[in-house]
Amino acid sequence: MKSRPVRELGENRVVSRFRALASATFGPNVVVGPGDDAAVLRVSDERLLLLACDMMVQEIQFRLEWAEPRQIGWKAMVANLSDIAGMGGEPAAAVASLGVPGDLPEEVAAGIADGLVTAASRYRTSFVGGDLVGSPGPIIVDVAIMGWVEPANLLRRSGAKPGDALCVTGRLGASAAGLVARRHGLEEANSSLLAEALRAHHEPTPRLPEARAIAGSHLASAMMDLSDGLAEDLPRLCGESGVGARLRAEAIPIHRACSRVANQLGLNDLNLAITGGEDYELLFTCPPEVVSELSVAVLEATGTAITVIGETVAEEEVILLDLDGMEQPLGRGFDHFAAPS
Amino acid sequence: MKSRPVRELGENRVVSRFRALASATFGPNVVVGPGDDAAVLRVSDERLLLLACDMMVQEIQFRLEWAEPRQIGWKAMVANLSDIAGMGGEPAAAVASLGVPGDLPEEVAAGIADGLVTAASRYRTSFVGGDLVGSPGPIIVDVAIMGWVEPANLLRRSGAKPGDALCVTGRLGASAAGLVARRHGLEEANSSLLAEALRAHHEPTPRLPEARAIAGSHLASAMMDLSDGLAEDLPRLCGESGVGARLRAEAIPIHRACSRVANQLGLNDLNLAITGGEDYELLFTCPPEVVSELSVAVLEATGTAITVIGETVAEEEVILLDLDGMEQPLGRGFDHFAAPS
Repeated sequence: MKSRPVRELGENRVVSRFRALASATFGPNVVVGPGDDAAVLRVSDERLLLLACDMMVQEIQFRLEWAEPRQIGWKAMVANLSDIAGMGGEPAAAVASLGVPGDLPEEVAAGIADGLVTAASRYRTSFVGGDLVGSPGPIIVDVAIMGWVEPANLLRRSGAKPGDALCVTGRLGASAAGLVARRHGLEEANSSLLAEALRAHHEPTPRLPEARAIAGSHLASAMMDLSDGLAEDLPRLCGESGVGARLRAEAIPIHRACSRVANQLGLNDLNLAITGGEDYELLFTCPPEVVSELSVAVLEATGTAITVIGETVAEEEVILLDLDGMEQPLGRGFDHFAAPS
Repeated sequence: MKSRPVRELGENRVVSRFRALASATFGPNVVVGPGDDAAVLRVSDERLLLLACDMMVQEIQFRLEWAEPRQIGWKAMVANLSDIAGMGGEPAAAVASLGVPGDLPEEVAAGIADGLVTAASRYRTSFVGGDLVGSPGPIIVDVAIMGWVEPANLLRRSGAKPGDALCVTGRLGASAAGLVARRHGLEEANSSLLAEALRAHHEPTPRLPEARAIAGSHLASAMMDLSDGLAEDLPRLCGESGVGARLRAEAIPIHRACSRVANQLGLNDLNLAITGGEDYELLFTCPPEVVSELSVAVLEATGTAITVIGETVAEEEVILLDLDGMEQPLGRGFDHFAAPS
């Protein structure tokens, strides 16, 4: 085997190799293995068990100069809660592994713990244990979560049919705006929209009630959470479903904090909203004739608007129809092996 | 709050602060939270769910110069399987988060994955997913595992009563011998015992059948796995049970590979066997009158011998009675915030 670095191979190809290996270990109770927001195991007729994990490493997913310790813990827990949301489920319990250098000030470790616990508590998830180890450098926060979903409410990435409406909850790009604001050293005090972008980036909200409303309606065909950005995540949903997508640029609900920050920095807000990760909104599909019913159901249950951003198609290609009607392949979102930001 | 580094605080005190925080999040179904080998959740009358995680970080828990990639993956999975064993349970499914630097050769990542999958498969555990992220430096392998245990078979650290017999499965110190052999650059080809020590260190065995035999006998009062060494782990079991212990030096079953390596390097084999971690043997207690029955049951079911190494006492102090009948407080085992080895 030629020795190539994993960076060249790319995240998706490394993951697909893992999947092939892992499938050989599956017992008869495995309903969904790697490749979805969470794994699914059959444990009784009434409910399926969900299991997922999500790791955050200092200098890759967070910086101590940018985020408060409690925000780091909060976000690590939310990334996992969002994985449970992506399947239409409810979280139950979480554990966390922390790797910390021995010289880390005590209050930083305590702050991270506080954030983990606060997020777990906020979303009725029992924080039941973990592991604490030394680290030769970066702080490492890895949360594993389990939850439940009724078989009828389970939503996977693989259920989309050609011709389905492509929808998202809420608005996109606020988290990405917060990140570029940090990179460019914009100050929080400058505007309330900037503060909103920074809050979206550091203290995201998992769309758990929205996920339950979508799943409970039994109207949606596929779902996932948007953790790496639409440009990265939509092709994954399409790949699992064996469909393509036509995304309509003018329909993307760009968060106004994203537009504001983009404008201030001379960036394209649509691009930021599509390629930026960590919005933790839900991406889902449903037959076009139920969009209205589903929208009303979610809005009434949660107060959150959903937006149709395009449709799935039979050709397995993900196309962005831009404002001028030009077609272009969708750009890339967050790649975990890109250079640290 | 005075800013102290976590190293000064020590692993046990950091963990106990986490525990206090975490307990506020517990739902009514939490049977055991942090502080045992795994958390325990009530999900039905017939069985309890076990949840644990265990992280390994390059330069702290492993070195690429010493271990083959597949051994790193194997051991990370075994550490988790051993946590399930420590509760008397059976593993069901695992997920793993991998943090790898972008320049890591592809075959190293593939080797780690292979080791994870091989260990999962060997112990009938479905490897159902995970997370892959970049790392600015060390390779990080964090596995989270879930399993099951019947309520009657659950064994906790907290069940020991004064006067119980203190027992271990197998023999201690082979893994520690493998580690010091690596540190001193001893070569594998030198002897079959050295090879055994290195194998024990890099490819440990989780005591799952032994755990099921001990738990299924309903004769034991408390149990945990020995991951950080008897000197570190025994005080934890005693602390949870509110007892002390008198450990008899002459009764410790020192692995012959440990004695051989210690002899070769001029080290004390008893000290190595007591303070060395990662044997993944089981430490358990039972009333003295059932030791014989329990020993036979475990031996017949698994072929593994158990050894009585002392007894628990009411005074909350852990004492080593050495070969000359002298009493000394038990030394320390592996501290995750000690300097990298």
